[in-house]
Amino acid sequence: MHPVTFAPRRMRHDSPDCGPALRRIRADAPFVYGLTNYVAAALSANVLLAVGAAPAIGAAPGWPVAFGAQAGGLWVNAAGLINATEHDMLAAIDAANAAEVPWVLDPVAMGAGVAEYDDIIRRLAACRPAVIRGNASEIMALAGGAATARGVETTASITQAVPLGVALARRSGAIVAISGPEDHVLSPDGQQIIIPGGHRWLTAVTGAGCALGGLIAAGLAVTPADPHERLTTVAAVHALYARAAEMAAGPAQGPASFATGFVDALAQLQGRADD
Amino acid sequence: MHPVTFAPRRMRHDSPDCGPALRRIRADAPFVYGLTNYVAAALSANVLLAVGAAPAIGAAPGWPVAFGAQAGGLWVNAAGLINATEHDMLAAIDAANAAEVPWVLDPVAMGAGVAEYDDIIRRLAACRPAVIRGNASEIMALAGGAATARGVETTASITQAVPLGVALARRSGAIVAISGPEDHVLSPDGQQIIIPGGHRWLTAVTGAGCALGGLIAAGLAVTPADPHERLTTVAAVHALYARAAEMAAGPAQGPASFATGFVDALAQLQGRADD
Amino acid sequence: MHPVTFAPRRMRHDSPDCGPALRRIRADAPFVYGLTNYVAAALSANVLLAVGAAPAIGAAPGWPVAFGAQAGGLWVNAAGLINATEHDMLAAIDAANAAEVPWVLDPVAMGAGVAEYDDIIRRLAACRPAVIRGNASEIMALAGGAATARGVETTASITQAVPLGVALARRSGAIVAISGPEDHVLSPDGQQIIIPGGHRWLTAVTGAGCALGGLIAAGLAVTPADPHERLTTVAAVHALYARAAEMAAGPAQGPASFATGFVDALAQLQGRADD
Repeated sequence: MHPVTFAPRRMRHDSPDCGPALRRIRADAPFVYGLTNYVAAALSANVLLAVGAAPAIGAAPGWPVAFGAQAGGLWVNAAGLINATEHDMLAAIDAANAAEVPWVLDPVAMGAGVAEYDDIIRRLAACRPAVIRGNASEIMALAGGAATARGVETTASITQAVPLGVALARRSGAIVAISGPEDHVLSPDGQQIIIPGGHRWLTAVTGAGCALGGLIAAGLAVTPADPHERLTTVAAVHALYARAAEMAAGPAQGPASFATGFVDALAQLQGRADD
Repeated sequence: MHPVTFAPRRMRHDSPDCGPALRRIRADAPFVYGLTNYVAAALSANVLLAVGAAPAIGAAPGWPVAFGAQAGGLWVNAAGLINATEHDMLAAIDAANAAEVPWVLDPVAMGAGVAEYDDIIRRLAACRPAVIRGNASEIMALAGGAATARGVETTASITQAVPLGVALARRSGAIVAISGPEDHVLSPDGQQIIIPGGHRWLTAVTGAGCALGGLIAAGLAVTPADPHERLTTVAAVHALYARAAEMAAGPAQGPASFATGFVDALAQLQGRADD
Repeated sequence: MHPVTFAPRRMRHDSPDCGPALRRIRADAPFVYGLTNYVAAALSANVLLAVGAAPAIGAAPGWPVAFGAQAGGLWVNAAGLINATEHDMLAAIDAANAAEVPWVLDPVAMGAGVAEYDDIIRRLAACRPAVIRGNASEIMALAGGAATARGVETTASITQAVPLGVALARRSGAIVAISGPEDHVLSPDGQQIIIPGGHRWLTAVTGAGCALGGLIAAGLAVTPADPHERLTTVAAVHALYARAAEMAAGPAQGPASFATGFVDALAQLQGRADD
């Protein structure tokens, strides 16, 4: 493990780090397909629309196979099992893999003590996701550690989760991204990028973590299939999220006006030096 | 085809055109039933509540048959197939038709290359909708033209879609409404009404088009079953949407505050000269 | 019936009544599990997050049995039948009852003339909910009175509903809470608490009533299983809702900015004297 601090100081609005990925998303307007839960679906779509991507969500008849292959990126949110089946998810994932479309796994609520549900996530995780993103408890559970989730919330700290996340990245070949007070992005070859910033209100907006999975898929859709490029993009998307959260936090009166300001900020950011 | 320009100049707030329909909705508070997708459901309900209608959404056991018949208007959004079945939709449509309740079809994502899904929409479209509304790609695909959709987004222009929309209206007997930078409302007997205005941010708010389908159903619910009256109402609802979007755009900071302002504007408008 | 007026004058911000319950929710951050509909799900989660609770929503495989038992409180919203089954709901309820987890029943749209749907709600209601909350039409229908609902809306008044609600509370052993211009909370032993205040815009925000069901479950999760304590908490949660609505109404421009301000207000309130 070779820790590399990404943007070690407070993220600045003129940071070059999130700019290239955001500019590519705006230029390419990638079609991104998501199988996610109905609690997070609208926010996820709005986050993607704000950065200029073209999202479609849900498992209408024929969509998983067709859109899994057509999309530039796919995200699969395990809590999407409240409104889709494992079969739908596997169909989309298989289509994506066959078409070399990168996909993101979000193991929501893994490790909350529901064996049947965790087993489904393990089967999804075996299908070569490009990125696995989650909170500390979820990543720990998927890595084979203790089950510490309480519903969809983490009770573990980033510090506890990072070593297990490093092992999960190495074993699975996926980039592993852990959200928390600081976000950690871990590569299969042992790199670690830390993204500071963001705002605690992100945890008070339902679906904010889930929407990040969609945004990562949009980033992958406009990034060459190169491990280093993908790692840079995943970190850049986290930095973009943190930056938008900081922009929104100032004028916000609470988590709901924060959520509004957050999506507005994502739409305002252009990835240019004068953002 | 006899083009008639509706509100050929920028929509004015004292326009008499959207007033009567809006006043009737507020006065009658019609019960409007929708089978739509979970991404758009909350916005659709809030749009309808803002103008004083009484929406119910979803296919709980017994609802399609009962509410299809009880409602003043029904809207069926094809992307609702992510959370309901074709059977649910046909049950609601049959009940509506039997009770002479007008219904609106929104062929979301038709023409995106999913044959199984498009076939379902064709079967729904064969059930005598009063109005078919969609974006350019969707209307073109349903009219038998090329498949140009990318997920739920259009890649075609209004100009390409209008001739096919005219043919679809003539063949189906439905009013056909195409959303775009300008909206076009087409009647079975060849009339064409163009509604300018609106705002590009409407395309950055997930479900804004879907919610328009619900609002059209509310308009039909308070309009006599006369072709000319219905055409006027469908155009008026589009003008109302455009007017609210223009009101919201000024103070908005981005698409999320725009969405908030848009629903607020719909609630503020009373259909009176001093709106 | 022994009417007791709770906060008989306009709710004041320093009211001691909603403070203790809110402070306990913030201190304990209870895990609250909900089976609710996709129209109301995001608002419900955001309302719960705003007061510091930890919600999970939906019937992913294994969740009803596991989360029904693990949660501090459960809410079951009958309109959740648009995206879950009666079997899911009964599984969660049985698990909750076995673990002595209190649960809230919200009989959305009961009495709208859908016999099959109403029958399901009757079966749920037979499973010993701690609280039944709804609007006037819903409570009247569940109590065996006339069917007066129109979709999810009430057409009956609180005055009509209270006598039937009193009987329902006595017969079922549940606390019965009726939302309206004033809210009435009724105990099995005949107490009646009236909570004034709130704001009419709450009825223009889709899912606001549904979210209240979740907040009641959060309140129960931090309250001893004592009839008097629970009654006090249910009234306190209604007072909290009314207080947040009043805070939001002043600066709001319409129902959407009201909804934003309402969630922000719930996050701002701390249950202290200087709130």
